[in-house]
Amino acid sequence: MDISVSDAGEFGLISRIRARLRSGESVLLGPGDDAAVVASPDGRTVITTDVLVEDVHFRRDWSSAYQVGRKAAAQNLADIVAMGARPTAIVVGLAAPRDLPLEWADGLVDGLQDECDLMRAGLAGGDVVRSATLSISVTALGDLQGRPPVLRSGAEAGQVVVVAGRLGHAAAGLDLLRAGRREPAALVDAHRMPTVPYAAGLRLAAAGATALIDVSDGLVADLGHIARESGVRIELASDDLPLPPELVEAALALGIDPRSWVAAGGEDHAFAATMSDEAALRAVAMLADLDGPVPFTQVGRVVAGDAGVVFVDEPPPNLAGHDHFAPYS
Amino acid sequence: MDISVSDAGEFGLISRIRARLRSGESVLLGPGDDAAVVASPDGRTVITTDVLVEDVHFRRDWSSAYQVGRKAAAQNLADIVAMGARPTAIVVGLAAPRDLPLEWADGLVDGLQDECDLMRAGLAGGDVVRSATLSISVTALGDLQGRPPVLRSGAEAGQVVVVAGRLGHAAAGLDLLRAGRREPAALVDAHRMPTVPYAAGLRLAAAGATALIDVSDGLVADLGHIARESGVRIELASDDLPLPPELVEAALALGIDPRSWVAAGGEDHAFAATMSDEAALRAVAMLADLDGPVPFTQVGRVVAGDAGVVFVDEPPPNLAGHDHFAPYS
Repeated sequence: MDISVSDAGEFGLISRIRARLRSGESVLLGPGDDAAVVASPDGRTVITTDVLVEDVHFRRDWSSAYQVGRKAAAQNLADIVAMGARPTAIVVGLAAPRDLPLEWADGLVDGLQDECDLMRAGLAGGDVVRSATLSISVTALGDLQGRPPVLRSGAEAGQVVVVAGRLGHAAAGLDLLRAGRREPAALVDAHRMPTVPYAAGLRLAAAGATALIDVSDGLVADLGHIARESGVRIELASDDLPLPPELVEAALALGIDPRSWVAAGGEDHAFAATMSDEAALRAVAMLADLDGPVPFTQVGRVVAGDAGVVFVDEPPPNLAGHDHFAPYS
Repeated sequence: MDISVSDAGEFGLISRIRARLRSGESVLLGPGDDAAVVASPDGRTVITTDVLVEDVHFRRDWSSAYQVGRKAAAQNLADIVAMGARPTAIVVGLAAPRDLPLEWADGLVDGLQDECDLMRAGLAGGDVVRSATLSISVTALGDLQGRPPVLRSGAEAGQVVVVAGRLGHAAAGLDLLRAGRREPAALVDAHRMPTVPYAAGLRLAAAGATALIDVSDGLVADLGHIARESGVRIELASDDLPLPPELVEAALALGIDPRSWVAAGGEDHAFAATMSDEAALRAVAMLADLDGPVPFTQVGRVVAGDAGVVFVDEPPPNLAGHDHFAPYS
């Protein structure tokens, strides 16, 4: 029989979780007191929070606990990087049904920890409570290292719109799962657990991004945030959207236009930025220097005009961005 | 007909919430970007997180949305103060059923904001998601203002154990609600929405507390944390527990020993500390100087011996502390 979290009790579960943690370099005081202490050498702390709910953001039969942990950490760390900041630590609230297997909690913590390790961030603390619905709340902190935050409001007419990272893979993976498929694994896994190009995001900021966002709601929706906050018009071209062969293949199998995934699919946590032409050239050079190759595409231009995102050619179908109150399964 | 959060949609709900917020002095960049930015002048950030779940930590027929908001913020701000730090900001994750009335969300935000105002902390950002179970995740940040954090591990033999604030009121209120009573209001409201003696907690730290904790799990359980982390024995006397007349009266009505509420009831978020006799005298003077009077009691002594909490006289019955996987209603 599986041992559950309620068999272990609150304090048993907490000590089991603590035994699995590795300390991060920025965590000055980890779990075990009333609160944790995290280094903020810049004197400003960047903070973001996201909640993942079972059957709304993940399904236990589609994703492992480890993958849910990776994803829960990733989407918060990506938000920190989208400010041009270095992630330092996360704290986690786990709301668990009484019968949640202890092994599931173990996998979750391992996933959270492994994703944090990618940025040398630490898991500084958390809370475990009982709930009929399984959910994971993550809050991430980051340090600006003396630089100004890169906001959504800095885009200016005449600049280019670039994307570092993959678009549409997680959305394709979700549609494959909805259609009862588990292949191709690369796309399905992209939904289960994003591969966030953190280092590329930080280099876009360093190259001179005037606005920066991680693509969580979909490219058009997220560029819409930049357009509205900056008071500019962003022009995209369907024909310029990156369409890697694996997306085209999956789209043919499902009878879907793959440009819809690329234009409206979120959760790959690519980084979209606006910058001058010169900055974009710098970004190309800085990204070429990364350990692993990261796709880098100019997808559009910033122009004067009514704030919003428009296509200069025929837009892909189904462009509505992600609404967190919309159905999942 | 009530308008629900799903009628408003994710972005409608977010803009409605943002319109109700007042900015805090430490919030350098509030909601609306990928992340918020909070001042951390000390160069270290204190961080804590807590999740409140409907029917586990609150009931909508027992507490108003405003009271749940006050309580959700309070228990996190109390954890920050229990480190000797000044709260600066909170972020909030709201997981809401589709049919949650928009007015409930309004009340929650007003409660969070009003509690933050007590410490001039800001509501810096958050997330709203759909969930079958209503829950509120709060993460609070604090600034140490150049002082070392006051840990649970600093208690030393020869010191006194003191408490600033009320004990047992929230537990009495919960037992009254469970018995179907709504009176006396002062006790029932203590469960719905604690009155946390934040300023007194900070003064205990300034007076020279060697260990400090907010009483959330119950006095004996929380002093147990100090005893174990410090490797000391804490001696309490049932006869020295503060027993205000309103507790005695309610206990008589319910046929309960009121010392059980005082010794084992959590959620009043009084501050318990260990300190030298001289520091305790300083604390008396510093607390006398507060705007409103805060109960201050010496409840025990720190002695050498096996780590733990013991009563030197007959202990009150039912001393088990709060386990978050235990039943609520």
